[in-house]
Amino acid sequence: MSPKITVELLRQLRQAMRNTKYIAEPIQAYIVPSGDAHQSEYIAPCDCRREFICGFNGSAGTAIVTEKHAAMWTDGRYFLQASQQMDNNWTLMKMGLKETLSQEDWLISVLPENSTVGVDPWIIAADQWKNMSKALASAGHSLVAVQDNLIDAIWMDRPTRPSTQLLTLGLGFTGLTWQDKMTALRSKMAERKISWFVATALDEIAWLFNLRGSDIEYNPVFFAYAIVGMNTIRLFVDIKRLAVPTVREHLQLDTPSKVELSIQTAPYESVFTELQAVCASLGPKEKVWISDKASCALMQVIPKTHRSPIPYTPLCLAKAVKNATEIQGMKMAHIKDAVALCELFAWLEKEIPKGTVTEISAADKAEELRSQQKDFVGLSFPSISSVGPNGAIIHYRPLPETNRTLSLNEIYLLDSGAQYIDGTTDVTRTMHFGSPSAYEKETFTYVLKGHIAVSAAIFPNGTKGHLLDSFARQALWESGLDYLHGTGHGVGCFLNVHEGPCGISYKTFADEPLEAGMIVSDEPGYYEDGLFGIRIENVVLVVPAKPKYNYRNKGSLTFEPLTLVPIQAKMVNTDLLTQKEVSLGNIHSFKSALP
Amino acid sequence: MSPKITVELLRQLRQAMRNTKYIAEPIQAYIVPSGDAHQSEYIAPCDCRREFICGFNGSAGTAIVTEKHAAMWTDGRYFLQASQQMDNNWTLMKMGLKETLSQEDWLISVLPENSTVGVDPWIIAADQWKNMSKALASAGHSLVAVQDNLIDAIWMDRPTRPSTQLLTLGLGFTGLTWQDKMTALRSKMAERKISWFVATALDEIAWLFNLRGSDIEYNPVFFAYAIVGMNTIRLFVDIKRLAVPTVREHLQLDTPSKVELSIQTAPYESVFTELQAVCASLGPKEKVWISDKASCALMQVIPKTHRSPIPYTPLCLAKAVKNATEIQGMKMAHIKDAVALCELFAWLEKEIPKGTVTEISAADKAEELRSQQKDFVGLSFPSISSVGPNGAIIHYRPLPETNRTLSLNEIYLLDSGAQYIDGTTDVTRTMHFGSPSAYEKETFTYVLKGHIAVSAAIFPNGTKGHLLDSFARQALWESGLDYLHGTGHGVGCFLNVHEGPCGISYKTFADEPLEAGMIVSDEPGYYEDGLFGIRIENVVLVVPAKPKYNYRNKGSLTFEPLTLVPIQAKMVNTDLLTQKEVSLGNIHSFKSALP
Repeated sequence: MSPKITVELLRQLRQAMRNTKYIAEPIQAYIVPSGDAHQSEYIAPCDCRREFICGFNGSAGTAIVTEKHAAMWTDGRYFLQASQQMDNNWTLMKMGLKETLSQEDWLISVLPENSTVGVDPWIIAADQWKNMSKALASAGHSLVAVQDNLIDAIWMDRPTRPSTQLLTLGLGFTGLTWQDKMTALRSKMAERKISWFVATALDEIAWLFNLRGSDIEYNPVFFAYAIVGMNTIRLFVDIKRLAVPTVREHLQLDTPSKVELSIQTAPYESVFTELQAVCASLGPKEKVWISDKASCALMQVIPKTHRSPIPYTPLCLAKAVKNATEIQGMKMAHIKDAVALCELFAWLEKEIPKGTVTEISAADKAEELRSQQKDFVGLSFPSISSVGPNGAIIHYRPLPETNRTLSLNEIYLLDSGAQYIDGTTDVTRTMHFGSPSAYEKETFTYVLKGHIAVSAAIFPNGTKGHLLDSFARQALWESGLDYLHGTGHGVGCFLNVHEGPCGISYKTFADEPLEAGMIVSDEPGYYEDGLFGIRIENVVLVVPAKPKYNYRNKGSLTFEPLTLVPIQAKMVNTDLLTQKEVSLGNIHSFKSALP
Repeated sequence: MSPKITVELLRQLRQAMRNTKYIAEPIQAYIVPSGDAHQSEYIAPCDCRREFICGFNGSAGTAIVTEKHAAMWTDGRYFLQASQQMDNNWTLMKMGLKETLSQEDWLISVLPENSTVGVDPWIIAADQWKNMSKALASAGHSLVAVQDNLIDAIWMDRPTRPSTQLLTLGLGFTGLTWQDKMTALRSKMAERKISWFVATALDEIAWLFNLRGSDIEYNPVFFAYAIVGMNTIRLFVDIKRLAVPTVREHLQLDTPSKVELSIQTAPYESVFTELQAVCASLGPKEKVWISDKASCALMQVIPKTHRSPIPYTPLCLAKAVKNATEIQGMKMAHIKDAVALCELFAWLEKEIPKGTVTEISAADKAEELRSQQKDFVGLSFPSISSVGPNGAIIHYRPLPETNRTLSLNEIYLLDSGAQYIDGTTDVTRTMHFGSPSAYEKETFTYVLKGHIAVSAAIFPNGTKGHLLDSFARQALWESGLDYLHGTGHGVGCFLNVHEGPCGISYKTFADEPLEAGMIVSDEPGYYEDGLFGIRIENVVLVVPAKPKYNYRNKGSLTFEPLTLVPIQAKMVNTDLLTQKEVSLGNIHSFKSALP
């Protein structure tokens, strides 16, 4: 992996920062966030502006360029990768380390007095704008919205925005019609006396309308906005996409059953002016719901007195609790996925001794085997296929220049998943095809103990996932070890492999309580820079538990693993497992790992 | 415990809410917070306004009175006690339960349109004012500061504010002179470019000046404020208290060693006008540090552009990390405390069969035995001495009308502690003097497992205490049980038995990372309403740990119990303990509880 040379790009960007064509007065710093106008985690090529300017292509990171400095913030998963992809013009800001300044504090430390900091209001979330703006103001600086994106201004061959074909999903996959979902949304709105709801997250819009697209690689979503009133539904999407008869039929565009379920469609770009029109017609007490993670541009259209920003929208909450049809689909998807990975492991055992399997070819083989399964759509994220030291790069993605050969001497870590029409998978297995060292087995076993501790945890209804995070670390901590990432994330059903509002992380306190029907990952790990990486990941379903007692009739929950892929027995030092872990392992499908 | 009759008081308060003597326009609701002007947890009798109006005398709770309703919010520790102390005019709002409205939401649900809600700005914390004000404004209501306290207006026999004798502490107890502490504070201020610091928390002021008082029962503090500049120290305190030669000498009031260490003293009440004067003289870039938990009244004196509110002041942070002298003092205090409690347990074993020991007499005996120890000052909180069902009232305090006799048939829970000049103690032991039932032993053992899990936890440097909370609950959760309070709180050194900024609780996310030298309690429990209460509490010191590995050279921490009081062996079902717990128990002084 060689770094991107950015001397010329930075010169051009700094020129644009002084160019009155874009902004009345020169700005002293320009922020390039990671996301798109929907705050998507994975983004389309046309939105990869941070990668364009600094070279780092991980899923999370923010670049800031001043007249003299260029710095990029990312988290522990990406420290190694970012340091390899960025040239010397860039300073890597390692988030989560005590000595690392926040973006605000860093700006305050480097900017001349009374500086102006610019950002594209469409790609900064409203809550981030608010915090940044406040922090800068407290130090005498100001944050301003630059309407023309300055990266786009210097990006000569920027790709166009995708507009792929839409896929309609029937009741057999969704369990609820979009009309049912609309009615449920409106009843939540009525409950909280909300007149309008603005949907900006792409996965929420896809879920609401039971539609899927492929505008963004790995995430079956499409570029759209929706504005829902008590009697109105407006869908903003490239109008060409609605010409297909199945889509028109699905959305009842030509023959709406009821007035309040009739969808008015409008071009994607017109959401701004349409939201302005909606806001202009609001009664004095009317409130508009919008995610506080929506773009600052859209948030600011809504007058403050009418604005009701929420951390998690009712769609986000409803989507997280899978219904029986979705759970059944997720189970089917995981069966198919396990078949494909078992085939892969058998193939690896046979082929590795020949010395011809590489990180890339192994990942390709996994994709090929998955693609033979029914209703396969694509991968759910770029496969992390990593050998030896590459495994320590937590979100590693093999490239020709980093590609290592699988051997009998090094640990192999494969974190991969797929989109099937019935569900989304995400699984990590760490394997050794020769003889793992005692230390590799020891650390693997600590990770397994943490994985089992979370998966087997029983906890009261209403518990937030972050309260389970330490269970995953206890065995590692006891030996002085740790890992610098969260333990689990929500998983969509034929939707984004990362979704809110639940998760298992020491970092998240704003997560919503776990509920039966939610689906999260359980993926502790251990990483030694320059040596190896270990991670054991299952996708697990939150299910009711029936322990001996029932304190205050609150009820209890636990997890049921959906992932059925075996864990390699030879990596486990069984002396380090307790009897209880062995028996829990049996219950929780770790059988293959146990003697 | 019979409820306080509040019909007449509520009538008078509602009259005051309409009385233009106090407020220009009638208010529709009046908030009565728990604290005093320093946001103290324990308060002087003159500040017990919430107890006066509703009868509930627990340490945490907020009363709100509207024209038609009266409601009081408190947490799980106090549900039973509050329901017994309040009459039918009051609605108990059980915080932490899903169905319980927040104060804001409740006000919004009961108030007529465009209502005005009043509160005394001196006894509401600035951060609470901000949140409440914002929430009310969003619903069309407004929060206003009522300068005359309306409770005081109807409280005929309100006690006067105490002004007890000050005790000076030498280096042998504090490890640092107040001049050293002042210099350290100023270097923190210089580091963050802060010109002034306003100290409002009573324990911080006592710690800073190495002085103690007895204005508030159980907490060795005195009513004061301090304002510290880079060359100025102003101490606001009842001037009479400074007439004592030892105090004048200690503070070097007559012979200051250096100009910048010369203390200007002023009457307690003058802090408001003096802070106004300081703020009037501020340069354009000067900043004033103040806790965001300071009173709204003082916070609002500081113009917004100069205000730098912080969740934890540098004094709070410095005070939490005990120095070698303080640690030695805390160890001595715990030895003395254990001697007194061992004497008590021997006495109880002898006396209980006679049927003459009650909750009150047992608590009195504990106090008597503690008072025989060197440098005993008083109790550190009201003893929770509870038999059988009274044990389920988490912060129970025996009263003549609730007083039960200790017997061979019921569990006895004693949560008590003392102030010695060298340190503060807080210990809970749960005992049975006959034969505990299998169920009592089972639940006790789950609590013990949780207690051991926290006490023996090894965790990386930089870990926040709230990440350890679930360890204390794991064994209970596995059996469907739980407890509705946090697991631990910071403990002062001859200071408040509850102090920030660290703790172990699922509720606290703003806690500061644990550091070697911090002292917290470890006190999981289990409570069955109407039957019994179990709690096992030690005070533990954060110390460096030396596990096998040292990931990223971060270092590890663990706890060393300071409490030396034995745990009753007969309460433990040893079949439920793992070998590891037995051995950890041996290391961590649970020896007496083990076979």
